[in-house]
Amino acid sequence: MNRIPIIKSRRVRSTPFTSRIEKQGVSSYSVYNHMLLPVSFGSIEDEYHHLKEHVQIWDVSVQREIEIIGEDSDRLVQFMTCRDLSNAKVGKCYYAPLIDANANIVNDPLIFKLDEKKWRVCIADSDVLFFAKGLAFGKNFNVDIYEANVNTIAIQGPKSENLMKKVFGEEIKNLKFFNYKYYSFNGVKHLISKTGYSKQGGYEIHIENTTSGLELYDYFFKIGKDFNLKPGAPNAIERIEGGLLSYGNDIDIRDNPLECGFDKYVNLESDIVFLGKEKLKKIKKEGIKKNLMGVKINTNTIDITEAISLNFNNKNIGELRSAAFSPKFDKIVGIAMIKKEFCTISLEFQIKLNNELVKGEICNLPIT
Amino acid sequence: MNRIPIIKSRRVRSTPFTSRIEKQGVSSYSVYNHMLLPVSFGSIEDEYHHLKEHVQIWDVSVQREIEIIGEDSDRLVQFMTCRDLSNAKVGKCYYAPLIDANANIVNDPLIFKLDEKKWRVCIADSDVLFFAKGLAFGKNFNVDIYEANVNTIAIQGPKSENLMKKVFGEEIKNLKFFNYKYYSFNGVKHLISKTGYSKQGGYEIHIENTTSGLELYDYFFKIGKDFNLKPGAPNAIERIEGGLLSYGNDIDIRDNPLECGFDKYVNLESDIVFLGKEKLKKIKKEGIKKNLMGVKINTNTIDITEAISLNFNNKNIGELRSAAFSPKFDKIVGIAMIKKEFCTISLEFQIKLNNELVKGEICNLPIT
Repeated sequence: MNRIPIIKSRRVRSTPFTSRIEKQGVSSYSVYNHMLLPVSFGSIEDEYHHLKEHVQIWDVSVQREIEIIGEDSDRLVQFMTCRDLSNAKVGKCYYAPLIDANANIVNDPLIFKLDEKKWRVCIADSDVLFFAKGLAFGKNFNVDIYEANVNTIAIQGPKSENLMKKVFGEEIKNLKFFNYKYYSFNGVKHLISKTGYSKQGGYEIHIENTTSGLELYDYFFKIGKDFNLKPGAPNAIERIEGGLLSYGNDIDIRDNPLECGFDKYVNLESDIVFLGKEKLKKIKKEGIKKNLMGVKINTNTIDITEAISLNFNNKNIGELRSAAFSPKFDKIVGIAMIKKEFCTISLEFQIKLNNELVKGEICNLPIT
Repeated sequence: MNRIPIIKSRRVRSTPFTSRIEKQGVSSYSVYNHMLLPVSFGSIEDEYHHLKEHVQIWDVSVQREIEIIGEDSDRLVQFMTCRDLSNAKVGKCYYAPLIDANANIVNDPLIFKLDEKKWRVCIADSDVLFFAKGLAFGKNFNVDIYEANVNTIAIQGPKSENLMKKVFGEEIKNLKFFNYKYYSFNGVKHLISKTGYSKQGGYEIHIENTTSGLELYDYFFKIGKDFNLKPGAPNAIERIEGGLLSYGNDIDIRDNPLECGFDKYVNLESDIVFLGKEKLKKIKKEGIKKNLMGVKINTNTIDITEAISLNFNNKNIGELRSAAFSPKFDKIVGIAMIKKEFCTISLEFQIKLNNELVKGEICNLPIT
């Protein structure tokens, strides 16, 4: 792949941590929610091994946080997702697909109930701000909707708990998976959730006080040597193996939650009101026609810039959407949208890469 | 500025022309509507001079085109913009700010009426797809809304008419500014508008048939030598001098159309129904508090990655949002949002750049 530089501007925003990660040697960027997302500092294979053994800090400010407050905020938040949030509790995080009237996915955020009538939607890469505004204005909901000035750093990896204990005290180890709470650093409170875009364990620190956040970032690196702490980024290999989906890569506006394996976040039985509910009931009744699956491909290098057709007996059976070389399997691992009738574990397919036909097989997600 | 490469993926889409522009030596990218936007092929100063003398082809596929069709499509399109489209005609293009309930700008697209009950919204860098969907679902409008598979190339520069005549025949010179029509290339019809993001004259070819579009792209370069045709990109210097605004840079969700000099696209007197109309009436009555202005700054280099404060007598008077070195003025030119009471031509201000205080002055847009 050609390595062509990205030009920063006000439209392609830097984060509060950009100058720091550049000093630390960030070597590639992506853009996500109109903002710079670091992709790597060196080799993503080295970073994969490091992430699975030690601990990393990631600048994931790109996970912009949309706040929805006011009288009708509960109704609006519920209206946007097929997951039943009627019993949502302050202190818990909810992974919740947002869908449109066709039951297709608009975004797959993590939703925080911050307080009564106050929600935070921590978004993937699409402008949920405008979707929420459109719905709210259309339905005359009494709400305020805005992007909050929150920038998130993630502490990920098996040594994350010990690192976090050293900064925030023993108490942090009581924080349960997909829960959040406020913890102090030098007298400033930060919202910390036990979440993150890896399967290696970790936390996300949602920074509202930027000055304190920058001090905190520096402090982590000051004390991080004992934990072999390094700057990092969401790792394509690790997240594909772990079956963590990426909106825009694995999921897009042509897919519904049932096709993406989100069955447990689809609540059609309760009496909650959400957009696309009738359509989703119909889809469930009739059965889905495609499904996200894992794949393994017998080669060791791939550049994926668009979906690539997968074939079985010269017939298209689906498309590869994300892929990376996995040192664990010594082949390419990927995430593919496969036609339902071909969603058979171990089914062999062919894929054309660099004008050569290569063999692969279908497997489960996560890829084990 | 550090030159750090961008990683492509399915989420950060390539365009049908990406492989061609990479062979032609594209040297930097931005990302716009989740897609790669070429920024330069060499020096943007050289490209500025070339654009003003000759003709360039730009890959502006990033101007994604959202189609809105169906019974309520007229109502929805009008509901999104303060510009009166009740007399919109097939064959004409309408620059139209989209606003929210607070009368703040969501996007500043070019709108095409393609047919009765069929519109195309050619968007700047925000997900209008989801805003339109939200409004439509909220209001129960009977419409279909989707991103069309259209990729646009722009032919810009004083020699663009002669180049286009050579490809599409003499007839193209009858196409008027902000009009569009279909023209044939090798038997395939392409929608061509006399529009573009420069002040040097030109056309945009909205390509639906990708195969023919690629042949057309190659054909332009085959015959382009006589016109000194080069690949190019929207030029920061030229567009700032020309006062062509950039959503995300010069305009954002905190600005209303009157603050951005869009008075002629604000129709408050007619009985059209649009979101934010009452709010906009109130703003007009009370008067705006800030205004986009041109600025000239007495230095010759600037990297702008976020808004920079402008000061007068140690008091903040506004913020610089876009800027570039102008060979024409031999100084920096820029676009700034200035507090109303300081919107005085020739008013001198100070700006801190690289820890040095530099002088500048306020001027009109376009900058002449």
